[in-house]
Amino acid sequence: MKLRVAWVSPKSRSKEPGYEVLTDEYVKRIGRYQEIETSILPDEAGILKLVTQSQGRTQPVLVLLDSRGKELFSEQFAKFLETQLSTGIQQLIFAVGPADGFSDEGRRAANHVISLGRMTLPHELARVVLLEQIYRAFTILKGHPYHGGH
Amino acid sequence: MKLRVAWVSPKSRSKEPGYEVLTDEYVKRIGRYQEIETSILPDEAGILKLVTQSQGRTQPVLVLLDSRGKELFSEQFAKFLETQLSTGIQQLIFAVGPADGFSDEGRRAANHVISLGRMTLPHELARVVLLEQIYRAFTILKGHPYHGGH
Repeated sequence: MKLRVAWVSPKSRSKEPGYEVLTDEYVKRIGRYQEIETSILPDEAGILKLVTQSQGRTQPVLVLLDSRGKELFSEQFAKFLETQLSTGIQQLIFAVGPADGFSDEGRRAANHVISLGRMTLPHELARVVLLEQIYRAFTILKGHPYHGGH
Repeated sequence: MKLRVAWVSPKSRSKEPGYEVLTDEYVKRIGRYQEIETSILPDEAGILKLVTQSQGRTQPVLVLLDSRGKELFSEQFAKFLETQLSTGIQQLIFAVGPADGFSDEGRRAANHVISLGRMTLPHELARVVLLEQIYRAFTILKGHPYHGGH
């Protein structure tokens, strides 16, 4: 199975270099557990095309991060990831939306919508939190002491 | 009034440089709105001493970030900050705990306990989220467009 983390990043928006460094770090760490690819798209439509234009044998499962989604504890998120990994799907896509969130159409196209909490985060920070949670989830599932120590 | 953001950082723990860069960035941004100081303490006792050894005319107000605290929307957090700023206190301290959280004693010593959400975050990431939320709160209170655009 392929894990893909996708986010919207219009070129016009300047980035804090710290977010890039942390993104790379957690992608690298996740890679110890699971094949992972990242996709940077110009807009929400680009994210939805990842699903509709997928050539795989099975439809990718799309998980959107959105403040109107379901809030999970880290252990619940790990369980969610474990369940997805066990279903035989070829691709699991986590997507962080544009600055103003996903449209109704985007959320309808998703298989799951998950919230990172009540606080509004800049999308670069939401991306880092998501990647850290995915990394944490793998350490929980594999019994690595990372989770207990944080 | 002085705003202080304090966190526990044992020397033995290596840091991701990205967290340092983002910490500096949001401290700088908050400084546009409010005098701010940061304190790096070796342990929870060091944080509690910030209150007990304060020389000010009024007792500092201590706000702990802890997963067992109250979860707020960004707008509620801004309102909370506004209320604190209006009470005439000399110092408001936000503190991010050690990796294993605050002790019962620590939480009893706090005036307020706030949660950043259900997901367990590494303390460096919790610190960045806190600082970003403080910055966001000031932009909300001052009507700066930052919050609406994220």
